Amino acid sequence: MKDIYITDLAGFDEERPFNSFFLVLAKQQRTTKQGKPYLVLSLGDKTGQMEGRVWEPGDPRIAKDFGRGDLVKVRGSVSRFDDRCQVKVEQLRKALEGEADLKDMLPCTTRDIDELWRQLDAAVESIVHPDLKRLLKALLSDASLAKAYREAPAARQLHHAWLGGLLEHVVSLLGLADRVAAHYPLLDRDLLVTGVILHDIGKVHELTWETGFDYSVEGVLLGHIQMGVDLVEKTIAGLPDFPERLRTLVLHMILSHHGKLEFGSPKLPMIPEALALNFVDDFDAKMQAMTSEFERSAREGKAADELTGKVWALDQRQLLNTKAWLSREGK
Amino acid sequence: MKDIYITDLAGFDEERPFNSFFLVLAKQQRTTKQGKPYLVLSLGDKTGQMEGRVWEPGDPRIAKDFGRGDLVKVRGSVSRFDDRCQVKVEQLRKALEGEADLKDMLPCTTRDIDELWRQLDAAVESIVHPDLKRLLKALLSDASLAKAYREAPAARQLHHAWLGGLLEHVVSLLGLADRVAAHYPLLDRDLLVTGVILHDIGKVHELTWETGFDYSVEGVLLGHIQMGVDLVEKTIAGLPDFPERLRTLVLHMILSHHGKLEFGSPKLPMIPEALALNFVDDFDAKMQAMTSEFERSAREGKAADELTGKVWALDQRQLLNTKAWLSREGK
Amino acid sequence: MKDIYITDLAGFDEERPFNSFFLVLAKQQRTTKQGKPYLVLSLGDKTGQMEGRVWEPGDPRIAKDFGRGDLVKVRGSVSRFDDRCQVKVEQLRKALEGEADLKDMLPCTTRDIDELWRQLDAAVESIVHPDLKRLLKALLSDASLAKAYREAPAARQLHHAWLGGLLEHVVSLLGLADRVAAHYPLLDRDLLVTGVILHDIGKVHELTWETGFDYSVEGVLLGHIQMGVDLVEKTIAGLPDFPERLRTLVLHMILSHHGKLEFGSPKLPMIPEALALNFVDDFDAKMQAMTSEFERSAREGKAADELTGKVWALDQRQLLNTKAWLSREGK
Amino acid sequence: MKDIYITDLAGFDEERPFNSFFLVLAKQQRTTKQGKPYLVLSLGDKTGQMEGRVWEPGDPRIAKDFGRGDLVKVRGSVSRFDDRCQVKVEQLRKALEGEADLKDMLPCTTRDIDELWRQLDAAVESIVHPDLKRLLKALLSDASLAKAYREAPAARQLHHAWLGGLLEHVVSLLGLADRVAAHYPLLDRDLLVTGVILHDIGKVHELTWETGFDYSVEGVLLGHIQMGVDLVEKTIAGLPDFPERLRTLVLHMILSHHGKLEFGSPKLPMIPEALALNFVDDFDAKMQAMTSEFERSAREGKAADELTGKVWALDQRQLLNTKAWLSREGK
Amino acid sequence: MKDIYITDLAGFDEERPFNSFFLVLAKQQRTTKQGKPYLVLSLGDKTGQMEGRVWEPGDPRIAKDFGRGDLVKVRGSVSRFDDRCQVKVEQLRKALEGEADLKDMLPCTTRDIDELWRQLDAAVESIVHPDLKRLLKALLSDASLAKAYREAPAARQLHHAWLGGLLEHVVSLLGLADRVAAHYPLLDRDLLVTGVILHDIGKVHELTWETGFDYSVEGVLLGHIQMGVDLVEKTIAGLPDFPERLRTLVLHMILSHHGKLEFGSPKLPMIPEALALNFVDDFDAKMQAMTSEFERSAREGKAADELTGKVWALDQRQLLNTKAWLSREGK
Amino acid sequence: MKDIYITDLAGFDEERPFNSFFLVLAKQQRTTKQGKPYLVLSLGDKTGQMEGRVWEPGDPRIAKDFGRGDLVKVRGSVSRFDDRCQVKVEQLRKALEGEADLKDMLPCTTRDIDELWRQLDAAVESIVHPDLKRLLKALLSDASLAKAYREAPAARQLHHAWLGGLLEHVVSLLGLADRVAAHYPLLDRDLLVTGVILHDIGKVHELTWETGFDYSVEGVLLGHIQMGVDLVEKTIAGLPDFPERLRTLVLHMILSHHGKLEFGSPKLPMIPEALALNFVDDFDAKMQAMTSEFERSAREGKAADELTGKVWALDQRQLLNTKAWLSREGK
Repeated sequence: MKDIYITDLAGFDEERPFNSFFLVLAKQQRTTKQGKPYLVLSLGDKTGQMEGRVWEPGDPRIAKDFGRGDLVKVRGSVSRFDDRCQVKVEQLRKALEGEADLKDMLPCTTRDIDELWRQLDAAVESIVHPDLKRLLKALLSDASLAKAYREAPAARQLHHAWLGGLLEHVVSLLGLADRVAAHYPLLDRDLLVTGVILHDIGKVHELTWETGFDYSVEGVLLGHIQMGVDLVEKTIAGLPDFPERLRTLVLHMILSHHGKLEFGSPKLPMIPEALALNFVDDFDAKMQAMTSEFERSAREGKAADELTGKVWALDQRQLLNTKAWLSREGK
Repeated sequence: MKDIYITDLAGFDEERPFNSFFLVLAKQQRTTKQGKPYLVLSLGDKTGQMEGRVWEPGDPRIAKDFGRGDLVKVRGSVSRFDDRCQVKVEQLRKALEGEADLKDMLPCTTRDIDELWRQLDAAVESIVHPDLKRLLKALLSDASLAKAYREAPAARQLHHAWLGGLLEHVVSLLGLADRVAAHYPLLDRDLLVTGVILHDIGKVHELTWETGFDYSVEGVLLGHIQMGVDLVEKTIAGLPDFPERLRTLVLHMILSHHGKLEFGSPKLPMIPEALALNFVDDFDAKMQAMTSEFERSAREGKAADELTGKVWALDQRQLLNTKAWLSREGK
Repeated sequence: MKDIYITDLAGFDEERPFNSFFLVLAKQQRTTKQGKPYLVLSLGDKTGQMEGRVWEPGDPRIAKDFGRGDLVKVRGSVSRFDDRCQVKVEQLRKALEGEADLKDMLPCTTRDIDELWRQLDAAVESIVHPDLKRLLKALLSDASLAKAYREAPAARQLHHAWLGGLLEHVVSLLGLADRVAAHYPLLDRDLLVTGVILHDIGKVHELTWETGFDYSVEGVLLGHIQMGVDLVEKTIAGLPDFPERLRTLVLHMILSHHGKLEFGSPKLPMIPEALALNFVDDFDAKMQAMTSEFERSAREGKAADELTGKVWALDQRQLLNTKAWLSREGK
Repeated sequence: MKDIYITDLAGFDEERPFNSFFLVLAKQQRTTKQGKPYLVLSLGDKTGQMEGRVWEPGDPRIAKDFGRGDLVKVRGSVSRFDDRCQVKVEQLRKALEGEADLKDMLPCTTRDIDELWRQLDAAVESIVHPDLKRLLKALLSDASLAKAYREAPAARQLHHAWLGGLLEHVVSLLGLADRVAAHYPLLDRDLLVTGVILHDIGKVHELTWETGFDYSVEGVLLGHIQMGVDLVEKTIAGLPDFPERLRTLVLHMILSHHGKLEFGSPKLPMIPEALALNFVDDFDAKMQAMTSEFERSAREGKAADELTGKVWALDQRQLLNTKAWLSREGK
Repeated sequence: MKDIYITDLAGFDEERPFNSFFLVLAKQQRTTKQGKPYLVLSLGDKTGQMEGRVWEPGDPRIAKDFGRGDLVKVRGSVSRFDDRCQVKVEQLRKALEGEADLKDMLPCTTRDIDELWRQLDAAVESIVHPDLKRLLKALLSDASLAKAYREAPAARQLHHAWLGGLLEHVVSLLGLADRVAAHYPLLDRDLLVTGVILHDIGKVHELTWETGFDYSVEGVLLGHIQMGVDLVEKTIAGLPDFPERLRTLVLHMILSHHGKLEFGSPKLPMIPEALALNFVDDFDAKMQAMTSEFERSAREGKAADELTGKVWALDQRQLLNTKAWLSREGK
Repeated sequence: MKDIYITDLAGFDEERPFNSFFLVLAKQQRTTKQGKPYLVLSLGDKTGQMEGRVWEPGDPRIAKDFGRGDLVKVRGSVSRFDDRCQVKVEQLRKALEGEADLKDMLPCTTRDIDELWRQLDAAVESIVHPDLKRLLKALLSDASLAKAYREAPAARQLHHAWLGGLLEHVVSLLGLADRVAAHYPLLDRDLLVTGVILHDIGKVHELTWETGFDYSVEGVLLGHIQMGVDLVEKTIAGLPDFPERLRTLVLHMILSHHGKLEFGSPKLPMIPEALALNFVDDFDAKMQAMTSEFERSAREGKAADELTGKVWALDQRQLLNTKAWLSREGK
């Protein structure tokens, strides 16, 4: 069990030895001025990451066979330089099966994943259109896909960049889509719900999260839109008599959900449900980015009625937390 | 009472005389090749507009004192050239008070304006925050402003370009905003509802609709964003002890509701409610534009499963009516 | 057999009756001022198109069952209005099987399609990499796909907009790609050749050409990039042990061949062969556009040393035919 | 009186104690590795700013009640790390009333503010149009507004970013506008002069300068264009019988003076005076930016005939000082 | 002598014969339905242009040897179709030397060209820097260049599109540049004046105006910036000991005077005089465009307080004539 | 002779003295905290650059008369701080004539420059058109121009940024242009080859490379396009009876070879050869940039099947080395 986290280390005295498990995010060999090799590591867990140095890589207490993506047990101490901390590693070995849990190593949703999955499942059950329902059921009944859907982050860095982020984002969209569909009779609710569940499904192949959040080579070359379309097409091909036009519309929603060519969608939304999907997706991502910024701003010690810094993901605008600001009127 | 409309005229035999009331949308004097003056008119009513010619403007049966914006009674007949129709005007006089109704002369919402107004009123009543409520009540209790709010179109040409269009758009937004606010705890529902009601209020001064839909000179020079801010500021100035910060947020929502500088908003949305207002406003306008395109496409005799033409207001994309298309699968 | 073409009609005397076969490009019913229905047709063949009118659609000599895309036999005469001509249709029936040939009805490449196909075939044979070769062979051995590949235009309006245009464009690219691959050792020639043959293959489903050049509804909603990727993926799925990485690269080349997101490619070219494919494709299309403009300019009677008009497909620039201009130096 | 400035400190020996007054630009509490709190300050005066550290914030000689924006008396010494300097603070208390002068703490115009104000006043007196004159007199006779107008910088970072910068910029524009108005009979000189004086007046509320140059929260949410319009509208509302059209034009000039939507003006200049205002404003700002760059380049020890570095405020272009360069011809 | 102008023809009775001189702006041969050739002409003079038809080109009274750019004497009459007029040409011959004056055939400045030239000359004389003065004198002493400089329009369609327009524009700029140089000590007045005189000098080769305003083929391929640089370089090459740095600055001003790469300047203005030249040039062109629009609006019968239509050359904005609008306040 | 290079220094022990020759890339005087002046140098050779410090500039063993661009002999030792190295200079004098070679000091093509020059020469000889041939011969027979053409880099930082880079780029283009011209009969091969040889010739004046790669002041103010046009024009002016139209086309190719206004070409390519020149130039630069990235990626120790980092010169895309990636399939 892991009981010492990266964020704890910052408060440790220098020279005080500790033991803990970390995920190896990067490993490089360098050479000192005297020509002696040493290792530069990046060690992480769900609370952050820290540099590590192995000054004696030849020491028998340092494993030879570990690398990026491995869970390791480390014995070492903290040194400080200016305001930055570094782990001086004295012993290091790969974690044994079951000794450490990947969930402790990467940022993770604060929501209950089982509960989110039940909500996704309920949305599938609520669909009336039989072809859309059997398409979703066929997809989500694939155990390895379902596992990945539960784990995947929604992005490497921007919104919902944590384990379970994709599912959390989709469940939020399901609620929003239901409300929007109820407001506009023009919208086919079942089709919109299907689009919400499938629009980012390619991310389970585009992103990798076992060794820190990154893109797979295939993900960079093809992208989650194409990968999602491929997954859905293959599933439809296995469903007898799936209506051709319905297939076209489902694929069109995935292809067009970024809303503009320059955002990587090769098609603009041309049906009401695709337009709605683009709007709810974009809006939910921006609302989540706002929420995250307010949290970060609070963590960094800003007063509740200060503007945030310029937010890269929102065109460099600053943000203001309405409720906090109003509550301080006159103070 | 008006019983002959522009759209009826297209079916009339040439030379068959008729009488009806129209709105004069334009009036120009020109000269024939023989140097004789004649008048070129544009006559309109709620179903469309048609060119008219007065070949004998000196005839005592042709009024001298009419101009753009006047309701007139016309006696004339239809002539045709190629596929276009023209009214040959033989008699023309200004309509007497009460003889004709402006509502027949301009396109008008199909919704019941009194009912829409009741919904707007109910939204105001539903607001809990006392300052926002008294601001809205102060504004809407101004009789001439309320009258204009009920009549104004939302635009000259794009979405909701008909009498009552502004109110119809706002009421649709109120429903949508309520749903969105219920989904995101970050949103202050009262502030968002206030933004919805006030965001386009400057249009009651920017647009003119008595003589066809157009922009006032002041509207072109200042714009409805500035005009709306001005109206709200003046109203707030008359409310004792209105909180300064609340005033700033309300004005910020109006200023930023177009979402981008290049769309004429001098500020980007920086608070959650301004972001939400921009999204629901843009989305509702595009949903309405889609609906209008499908109606137009049907009117022009396209089959329900054909794509529309390229839609200027939606970046030249073509549109497809999902439900119609799916219902013809396999036909 | 067809012996009278649209371009011939312009020289005919009014009232002189003629018989010929045409393709119906459009058919609309309208109503005269007296309320009598009539038909407005657009009739075409490979030399152009002309409006037609059927003033007596109820006449038993006018077929009832024809529509857009039908080959018809017409008896009529030419009338003129200003400088435009119109066919007055007196008799019309659908062509019998074999009476008329689609090739006469649409613009067609001037090259020998069998010869072009042999060149394509030779390119496939020249490929050394066994997996790429079996992929191409599997695809092109599908008879209906091969037939479509031989017939399809490369576009509705821009470059190579004629029957056989896709094949003609690909064969030109094959020659150019071979030269470019020989120049850069970094390039894998087999992969580049494969990209050339497959990059636009989705156009066989995106475009329709039986009834004039147009886009299918599926083509508009999904696009030829996605349709081509789908076709190739399905074919690969049927090939045992096709290498995963090779599959990714082939799909990446199709996805990225437009070179920029705003041109509808969801990915930028990231491998040398994809970069080369984008360049040769773009360059060949622009060279063909230049050639077509010089031909059009000559047809319109411009002197060889005049600039062409502003060319829409080339950013509104004017063009000059180097050789013609230089040959007139000093004249 | 202040006799030691930030720029002097760089030359001081380490450990040498000194006393001086500074403005607190930022104050943050952090914790050392041993868990002991310490303070990180940013101390500034008109010559620049330097980091400071209070290692013993509990020491009775360190005031508890100071913060951002306070003038403080500091006793400390300089330490150096690499090439950067830091103030080690040993004593700190808030300055007494009159002990220190804000003018010493922030960069300030080198021009005589009273003289600049006289020139502004003369421009107001020179206006012939009675309504414009009384508008300007009403505004500038507000003592607190006039004080702010005299003090405000024109920007936080770009052109004229110093106390009195707004006034200096406006006075330069007045001279330029007079010359331009004399050249073009189309221009109404009084209206243009009015536009020059009022175009940036909202900056007195948008910017704050007591505690270093920054934007107020209201300034960020509303912007100086809106704040200036508001100020002018309120003043006009208090002037009996102010002509409605004149009001519209004055507001239009303020709204449109940035010249483009994407620069934050919600309206393009549509009257000759607004066009002229946009040009002189933009040109004067760029001339000032050029002058500042040449001064900075000289300060940084570049030769007079070298190009400056790439200038961010001028689209990354480099600049050359014509006169200096020419005077070295042949050297 | 010419006494009948294009604008007069619109008022003529049909069939009434007239004689006058015109400039042939275009000539094309077409063929009637009966296969008979006829000529389509575009005839122009300084008041406008009109289509002409020669129905009997074989008639001995119709010259064979005329073409685009010839002055011709025409006998014909006016016919009308709908609201457009056409000249039916019955006789046509080339004008004899001296019978007609090119000045009557193209729009021309209303200013006295000799007086404008004297002002240009005075500006050259006022230059103190000896090298700049001898450069300008060398250029303008070339008789054919001086003749072209006096005649050339400043553009084909946009601002100053009339004979003498280039000179008129430059003389306006000279006055404005003098005022601006007097305001900014940073500016070298002689260099700025030189830039004003030379910036558009390439237009004397880029444009042709003998046969209507058009671009030469060389002008389209090289552009007036390059042509002007070439002219100035060749002149400098003939001046012994012209300082190298001064040459670079003069060329830089010509190259950069459009102010942005996307406006065809390959360099941004990097010296104060180039920045100033870009501003005065752009501003004067826009002021002239405004003036022209107000004149056109008046000619088209709009009231002085109406907005103009959307102006293409000014980003589609509408314009308002300040003085006219204010003078009608309250009417 | 130089036997110790910058890249060697990184492996040296601290304090170990060494001697070597370097190029001075920058020299600045600074002052220590005690007020003692010292020198900060940037020393370079063809393998890279390193900071140097002269702590005792007054020492007689330190030359006084050296500066940027000088070759110097240095005696010193390496010190390290964190992971960066610095040269502590103890002795320094300017290199004597012949002691050191500029070729050792700057990155240089790996190709044999004499062989490249022979290929350029052969291309000139292969030209059939006599006027183009004598133009190229006249230019390249200028000994100082030819020397510069052999030495010049093609850019400061982007593609081919090494001595001989311009020539290497041109020779690659000659091969590619020959292949392209053979493919398109529309292209005049001689004109295209001439364009290839001349398009970047202005770089011999725009860039300086004696003291590290930089732009001359004239180069920044005028640019290599204008400088190349000037060089070619002057050469043509010295060739009797050079055809005017041919001159225009050659200049047009140079002017337009960047392909877009926003890339600094004042004209778009309007003739087939200019279009081809733009394509081959752009494509060759990008292929070279890809090659360099793969080399850098390998140097930085990335595995052959990893993506490179985001490449600034290629719109921030990542790249993948096809052959390396495929060869690892399944590993």
